[in-house]
Amino acid sequence: MTGPQLSRRGLFTGGAAALGGAVAGGAVVTALRPEPAPAPPPAPDLVDFGQAIEPFHGARQAGVETVPQAHAAFVAFTLRPGTDRAALGRMMRLLSDDAARLTRGEAPLADTEAELAVVPARLTVTFGFGPGLYAAAGLPSPVAALPAFPQIDRLEERWNGGDLLIQICADDSITVAHAQRMLIKDSRPFATVRWVQRGFRRSAGTEASVRTQRNLLGQLDGTANPAPGTASFGTAVWREDGSTQLVVRRIRAELESWDLLGRADKENAVGRKLDSGAPLTGVTELDEPDFARLDATGFPVMPDFAHVTRARQTDDRLKIVRRPYNYDDAPAADGTADCGLIFASYQADIVRQYLPIQRRLAEKDLLNEWITPIGSAVFSVPPGAAEGGWVGQGVLA
Amino acid sequence: MTGPQLSRRGLFTGGAAALGGAVAGGAVVTALRPEPAPAPPPAPDLVDFGQAIEPFHGARQAGVETVPQAHAAFVAFTLRPGTDRAALGRMMRLLSDDAARLTRGEAPLADTEAELAVVPARLTVTFGFGPGLYAAAGLPSPVAALPAFPQIDRLEERWNGGDLLIQICADDSITVAHAQRMLIKDSRPFATVRWVQRGFRRSAGTEASVRTQRNLLGQLDGTANPAPGTASFGTAVWREDGSTQLVVRRIRAELESWDLLGRADKENAVGRKLDSGAPLTGVTELDEPDFARLDATGFPVMPDFAHVTRARQTDDRLKIVRRPYNYDDAPAADGTADCGLIFASYQADIVRQYLPIQRRLAEKDLLNEWITPIGSAVFSVPPGAAEGGWVGQGVLA
Repeated sequence: MTGPQLSRRGLFTGGAAALGGAVAGGAVVTALRPEPAPAPPPAPDLVDFGQAIEPFHGARQAGVETVPQAHAAFVAFTLRPGTDRAALGRMMRLLSDDAARLTRGEAPLADTEAELAVVPARLTVTFGFGPGLYAAAGLPSPVAALPAFPQIDRLEERWNGGDLLIQICADDSITVAHAQRMLIKDSRPFATVRWVQRGFRRSAGTEASVRTQRNLLGQLDGTANPAPGTASFGTAVWREDGSTQLVVRRIRAELESWDLLGRADKENAVGRKLDSGAPLTGVTELDEPDFARLDATGFPVMPDFAHVTRARQTDDRLKIVRRPYNYDDAPAADGTADCGLIFASYQADIVRQYLPIQRRLAEKDLLNEWITPIGSAVFSVPPGAAEGGWVGQGVLA
Repeated sequence: MTGPQLSRRGLFTGGAAALGGAVAGGAVVTALRPEPAPAPPPAPDLVDFGQAIEPFHGARQAGVETVPQAHAAFVAFTLRPGTDRAALGRMMRLLSDDAARLTRGEAPLADTEAELAVVPARLTVTFGFGPGLYAAAGLPSPVAALPAFPQIDRLEERWNGGDLLIQICADDSITVAHAQRMLIKDSRPFATVRWVQRGFRRSAGTEASVRTQRNLLGQLDGTANPAPGTASFGTAVWREDGSTQLVVRRIRAELESWDLLGRADKENAVGRKLDSGAPLTGVTELDEPDFARLDATGFPVMPDFAHVTRARQTDDRLKIVRRPYNYDDAPAADGTADCGLIFASYQADIVRQYLPIQRRLAEKDLLNEWITPIGSAVFSVPPGAAEGGWVGQGVLA
């Protein structure tokens, strides 16, 4: 389950030169052609972002160490009364089979819109189990709801909790919509929909998509993240059995007041320059902040109250890996934005890694003035499934 | 204002071979690389979907004949009391200037998140004037609200009407969100937000994006459309002065009952095969339907009640050009989908072209059983602006 594969269109037979040419013949040249013929037949060896596949099966679930796709749906469910351990097993067998097929670009068995399944676009389907699922199964839960952070939290029940989470990510919005529809339909005997959060990052095929992303406050967001595939990532995220833990927080951006700030104030609140993302003591994004450096007046250049100062963690065992998406719902009549971040962090142990950072941020982080947590949920993300197996088998079977 | 340009990264100096190689070195190889270095610096000649530019200035507005981008926001406004012709002129000067900058990948003058403006991704900003805007300006309106179609309409006031429409389309969701935010902020002295509808098609860079799109019912949608750049398109859409007219209808898909239909019933309702999009009398998508052909029982193979039969129009002067987007809002707790189509059609004359087709469909179209119009609005789309000018100048100045 390391990297994606491009399937069906002879990528590996063609080699890199053919790849470049094929893309030029397909997507890019389309963008240059003002008058495309109606519905041109695809070139037989067209390479296509839409046909990239992330393997579903493996020792660890996909969608965690996967380089983030452009679009995501986080779907939380409440189990119906009476959904016991045996029923949970049936549900997870069914949903795992759906996910395995969808991620290959194939229609699930009960798919009534099978034609929508043919563009996998790096689709991943990641299952998380909330405390309520373990309770329903009569099992101890590896995760517990976060404590309240009354200094910052303005949680709304409609965005809180969940017994089961399905994180659906792909580089195509129709793919996400169709996978979501199929997985919700097949979960109906067992669970109801508690909340759905849709989010986005830069599109695949844009230069911006391969760099640190910006959130809707305009900040580079995720600079300190361990990169997928590194030892640092593995130490921070994976438990020995292939499981991990997930925190999902809906964090509203107070864009109206943020927009009233000057640039220097914004940079002080974060501790980074807005353009480059460099720490206030540095020049480039990846420069290490120098917390000892003082300005002419004797104060630290990296303010004590800055987000970066408060969130800082250099020990891989204590880091978290953020995999967030922006959301942007309809604004109010007066134009007040309803946008922010679907904060999603993966870590081996929420209590050891996430909570100390969140406590420091809740206690003092100037950025808190312009961000408000309005939803919160935690999930254990069980190990991946082998071919023929299902996610959660080691927990529920 | 014909086709997009790729800017900034030396596309035209490099030629097609360099283009292919650059893409292979950028986006596609990224998708193949399981362990990317953190925030790699971009290659100096990287070609980037995000840097493709659709010119804003021209005799006709962009976003009409533009090959549809992957993401759209349709934002409708209600004018504040007292926004008269002079104020409308100020508003359109300001919004046109914002749009011209944003579509070039530059920050508008008052942009407080300027770093979000750098990925134009074929951004187009298209302005439409509703009947209320003409009334506020003391001018006769070229468009009037559609008559009621009581057989099919279940209109909700929250999706109806609008004095001003801004259609924002780009191949990147963050680009759409940022442009929407800027344009709403600068419209605040003049107007309030009436409704926002966000929609999507297949992503740029997927093979599926260059073909006829599928809607969330699984149908190929838009087969009969005149193609951008053809004489047929020009005849159907453009008026002599460079203006056109736009109908926006929010059409809910009744997915729960649609999913209960068998495949043959679905194909009969539409008049096309689900997989290929071919008419029931044909083999490939673009085959002409044969309305005279009878089946073994003596009935027409293309049913009289089928959507294609009812919507059929062969005279370019009477055709409409559909430029729709899918929407998919959060489902109900029981999983009932809230999805459908942001139907957007451009035509030179709504009364001459749109209304006869809509009347035939309202009167008899089996597909009506599974689609419900819940919003409706009409706009005149004034000519484009020359460099230094503004959209609506010929109407309001």
